[in-house]
Amino acid sequence: MEAGSVRPRRISRPVRVGDVTIGGGAPVVVQSMCSTDTRDVRATVEQIAALVDAGCEIVRVAVPDRAAAEALPEIVRRSAIPVVADIHFDHRLALAALAAGVHGLRLNPGNIRDPEKVREVVRAAAERGVPIRIGVNAGSLPPMEASPGAPPPTVAELRAALPARMVEAALGHVRILEALGFFDIVVSLKAFDVPVTVAANRLLAQQVPYPLHIGITEAGLPWAGTIRSAVGIGILLFEGLGDTIRVSLTGDPVEEVRVGYEILRALDLRRRGPTLISCPTCGRTEVDLVRLAMEVERRLQGIRDPITVAVMGCVVNGPGEAREADFGIAGGKGRGVLFRHGQIVGTYPEEQLVDALMAEIARERGWPVGTRSA
Amino acid sequence: MEAGSVRPRRISRPVRVGDVTIGGGAPVVVQSMCSTDTRDVRATVEQIAALVDAGCEIVRVAVPDRAAAEALPEIVRRSAIPVVADIHFDHRLALAALAAGVHGLRLNPGNIRDPEKVREVVRAAAERGVPIRIGVNAGSLPPMEASPGAPPPTVAELRAALPARMVEAALGHVRILEALGFFDIVVSLKAFDVPVTVAANRLLAQQVPYPLHIGITEAGLPWAGTIRSAVGIGILLFEGLGDTIRVSLTGDPVEEVRVGYEILRALDLRRRGPTLISCPTCGRTEVDLVRLAMEVERRLQGIRDPITVAVMGCVVNGPGEAREADFGIAGGKGRGVLFRHGQIVGTYPEEQLVDALMAEIARERGWPVGTRSA
Repeated sequence: MEAGSVRPRRISRPVRVGDVTIGGGAPVVVQSMCSTDTRDVRATVEQIAALVDAGCEIVRVAVPDRAAAEALPEIVRRSAIPVVADIHFDHRLALAALAAGVHGLRLNPGNIRDPEKVREVVRAAAERGVPIRIGVNAGSLPPMEASPGAPPPTVAELRAALPARMVEAALGHVRILEALGFFDIVVSLKAFDVPVTVAANRLLAQQVPYPLHIGITEAGLPWAGTIRSAVGIGILLFEGLGDTIRVSLTGDPVEEVRVGYEILRALDLRRRGPTLISCPTCGRTEVDLVRLAMEVERRLQGIRDPITVAVMGCVVNGPGEAREADFGIAGGKGRGVLFRHGQIVGTYPEEQLVDALMAEIARERGWPVGTRSA
Repeated sequence: MEAGSVRPRRISRPVRVGDVTIGGGAPVVVQSMCSTDTRDVRATVEQIAALVDAGCEIVRVAVPDRAAAEALPEIVRRSAIPVVADIHFDHRLALAALAAGVHGLRLNPGNIRDPEKVREVVRAAAERGVPIRIGVNAGSLPPMEASPGAPPPTVAELRAALPARMVEAALGHVRILEALGFFDIVVSLKAFDVPVTVAANRLLAQQVPYPLHIGITEAGLPWAGTIRSAVGIGILLFEGLGDTIRVSLTGDPVEEVRVGYEILRALDLRRRGPTLISCPTCGRTEVDLVRLAMEVERRLQGIRDPITVAVMGCVVNGPGEAREADFGIAGGKGRGVLFRHGQIVGTYPEEQLVDALMAEIARERGWPVGTRSA
């Protein structure tokens, strides 16, 4: 392994969800789930459009009942990205979702007790080339059984046993599908507990060839949930595990997509738009760096070019410390320097610095004159 | 290694910064740096007080000049936590900071060229029992030299060589201190690039016994910087590396401390206050979960008890999925259940649910009646 690299990615069996490939060395896919009532087609389609704008590549919708299933044909037709139906227990909903043209199912076959019903769903999925994601959450496992006569397990014992129990549950579902000759499988193992999630995914990765959908469940409101997800998903991706990610936040799913891309960017796995480097201010800073950085961030919004832009607080170390940046500015007292690939391009009064930066970026990137001047 | 655990922590040589121990198996210390002008004593002292409120355990201030050094005695006197002086090049500033009573220095001895001046600083630090942090940032390394006649290194070659070059630079500074019989050393290796930062720290950890101060430099504005820091610091901590952390954000340093604790909480390394578990809403949710979770978060603000509280969107899976929570509520249609340690305590109308939750927490935690009812 080369020093300074993410570990080589585990190469999984590729699975197609509509026109998107998960696994097999494909870029890590960013997905999310609608928080709308699936029966409300208009709200769901609008949310999907907002998710697509943010870069979402696969979207999941809950299908808790018949009415939700009936909304699927129109949702699928109006979605720009593949739609996955999330189904629990009721095989008729799965069949209806498949008939509606969904591109994936999230369904644990072991929860549909009747083998004949499972066979029916799997046959229908296979006919349509629709994959099935098996999703095991730590919280949904059946209670752990104590040995007869033994004291009930302690919290620490329960926790230590959890990864293996999650894997076992997932393998149970996997075997049902494999026995039916069905291999278009994606598996997810999620917990709120980051070390448990990591351990479970490591174990599973050794035992099946299928792509892994990774995430941290019930991670919380956006602020804490973002941090917990970044830590957990980041660790797994750094270990080379994870073919598709979903950040779970209690809030707008568009934020899940934004956070997902930012995690991937932090590990250089995917880039979407500019990367902003900015130093924390300190007692040496003689410029309003926060304002400057926020202004640059604002001006770069909506730009898709994967450029790196640095906003540094001091002229002395700025260009040097931001050598890896494509473009940058370093503020001084009333004046600042503009640099490109570590070389100083010029010195400007502070109030012209951002304009000069944007003009320089536009020049090098060949943007039409004036497009980014405001 | 037990499945589901963070890897055993590397046990480093403990170093005392004032009354705080870094390394040697001590809890990971959360630190930050003032963004105020150090010469402005009032602003700096106020910022330190806000940092302390957020849980900051060590604070660093920049000492770029004589005037900043002159402000140190009063800052140190009025700070509730140990103060570290950040000094570059000028050994007289280091001597002045030590005389002012600072509890730590951040200083790279190799940057003070004259060996006699280095000796003077190190002697003064040793006399006062003040440790020195050596801090190497990827961006501040001298340019990489190409072999004579060879083409200049490519970007990929530069990046691949970076971790070893950072370690080499740090070891150069370490050896200067060791040669003077000084071993109260903390080392940091930081880059904006997460994989480079991880690789550098892994390498260094094998070569010195000193505690590691970890962080990601110039991580950016709070949103992106938080995600990048959570990924980078999270990976290192999960590997058992890191004795103290600093999250670097372009913004209010109080946010650095909050994010720091949240990263530690995500890995179960430290807990400060309640942990909120909340599910992402989905098409099955029949309650305004975001509002409910935000309300619970608000009511829990300022509470130091390390309890876990779950806010779940559906009554069917809620209590089960949040078994690990000490307390929780699961919303239904107009009504919801309150549970404690996975057992249902009662059912309440939606508008009374949060009150019932807070009352239950207060009862079990033995809080005085009425203290948390509003």
